[in-house]
Amino acid sequence: MTSDATAGDRTRLRVRYAETDQMGRAHHMQYLAWFELGRTELLRAAGAAYSEIERQGVMLPVSNVDVEYLSGAGYDELVEIETRVSEVRSRTVTFAYVATRAETGEVLASGSTRLVCTNAEGRPKRIPPHLLKILRSVQNAHPGTAGS
Amino acid sequence: MTSDATAGDRTRLRVRYAETDQMGRAHHMQYLAWFELGRTELLRAAGAAYSEIERQGVMLPVSNVDVEYLSGAGYDELVEIETRVSEVRSRTVTFAYVATRAETGEVLASGSTRLVCTNAEGRPKRIPPHLLKILRSVQNAHPGTAGS
Amino acid sequence: MTSDATAGDRTRLRVRYAETDQMGRAHHMQYLAWFELGRTELLRAAGAAYSEIERQGVMLPVSNVDVEYLSGAGYDELVEIETRVSEVRSRTVTFAYVATRAETGEVLASGSTRLVCTNAEGRPKRIPPHLLKILRSVQNAHPGTAGS
Amino acid sequence: MTSDATAGDRTRLRVRYAETDQMGRAHHMQYLAWFELGRTELLRAAGAAYSEIERQGVMLPVSNVDVEYLSGAGYDELVEIETRVSEVRSRTVTFAYVATRAETGEVLASGSTRLVCTNAEGRPKRIPPHLLKILRSVQNAHPGTAGS
Repeated sequence: MTSDATAGDRTRLRVRYAETDQMGRAHHMQYLAWFELGRTELLRAAGAAYSEIERQGVMLPVSNVDVEYLSGAGYDELVEIETRVSEVRSRTVTFAYVATRAETGEVLASGSTRLVCTNAEGRPKRIPPHLLKILRSVQNAHPGTAGS
Repeated sequence: MTSDATAGDRTRLRVRYAETDQMGRAHHMQYLAWFELGRTELLRAAGAAYSEIERQGVMLPVSNVDVEYLSGAGYDELVEIETRVSEVRSRTVTFAYVATRAETGEVLASGSTRLVCTNAEGRPKRIPPHLLKILRSVQNAHPGTAGS
Repeated sequence: MTSDATAGDRTRLRVRYAETDQMGRAHHMQYLAWFELGRTELLRAAGAAYSEIERQGVMLPVSNVDVEYLSGAGYDELVEIETRVSEVRSRTVTFAYVATRAETGEVLASGSTRLVCTNAEGRPKRIPPHLLKILRSVQNAHPGTAGS
Repeated sequence: MTSDATAGDRTRLRVRYAETDQMGRAHHMQYLAWFELGRTELLRAAGAAYSEIERQGVMLPVSNVDVEYLSGAGYDELVEIETRVSEVRSRTVTFAYVATRAETGEVLASGSTRLVCTNAEGRPKRIPPHLLKILRSVQNAHPGTAGS
């Protein structure tokens, strides 16, 4: 994590009671929702609100996910998601994430998700030029090591 | 619960680990997903698959929910949802549910949900005649006391 | 909603993509997680962090829920949950909620949840005096009309 | 997928409405709950009910997850999860999964999850001998290629 990170690449959330399981921590599937939150905020900060992208008929379904879990997040704990763009290609974009315990900086999990660009019917297509430009500028602005 | 209940008005499910919370039982919000499962199966058995209803441009968003919880459902427990149609009006339909521990019949929760009929844009409209007929026949076939 | 509401009784959240359903709005079950978030924040602000309450062996499972839905919340919309304590009894506490579209104040849903006090094994018991005192003071501080 | 697969390694479920997102398919995080269901059923069939394992103080939190998504699963579609044990070590066990559209056999997603053995306090420990034996016998019974 670099010290010059802008607000956009860090999102904070509190673990909800509904997100815990009987092991007493956030269920591992929740991290995928949190990572999604992370990339939503990163894109919004970069001027590419995902809700707006979808309204333009550009879908970005997830094609690959990997997560490594290092420590559990308890109910009501403050979690920080650091997100960066790790790879941009003509038809895919990959985001990398590090989830930390906000109070101590301890790493909870790291992971990445690859998204493919499709039209509203789910057919793969190239990422539109204006979105590609934004993704590349985000990638260059934060060449950090989150999740890599 | 009447002994002549058909398969359609009873749905069984096992409590998933992801559905538990740190109190060690299914989180109370999950019952709304289970009730939804119950009415999906009831409608399918009656020849009105909800997925088909939606494809015809008829939406049935939930307008009211109430649930009373009596006992907790643990991970991997087999839960039975008994569903019936408790009220049919020109623009709304109300379903009533009883969730029981399948092995013992102990009641876990009971509740009801009212759905309003809308078009694909969310504008209220009358329930189409063919659907109304099916709902009324389901109501008459199971004049039980689930959730009432 | 009164204009002198403190921060504690208002919680804001953005609708997550994972919370939407194919109708294009937050699934109705999510409101129960949001209401839970609302009472968590209200209690925290009042000095009674729910995570701390549980560590002291006091559980507050939900015994009753009712929600009325008026309008749908779309992906990425900012939602405000206003929470108040509407009734305190020796063994139960009832919270009332109003969820609004934060930008316009339009009401999305209102509802209430009743919680019963139990020990760690799920046996009902009286709400401990210190918690009862806090709940009553919260109730008196915000005698508003949320969800009533 | 081999034709001699027993019931235990195949689990079927219907996509719930609550599991869809506004793209009109099951949200990608749901597959982690489905995979969990798959390994729960596989272990139960092998005589090692996970609920029983936990009661003996053995926890199996997830340490690694990877999923590749090939096609979306729509509301109410019947999905089959094929699960196998792909690796057993003294402190970890890895499960591999293939999710298919039950009607056509089309692959929706494949993935794997690694679980680490811990005690009730989350401290890593060796997998108890009787569980290790069961896991190895399951692995040998289905040396298939699911998710590999």
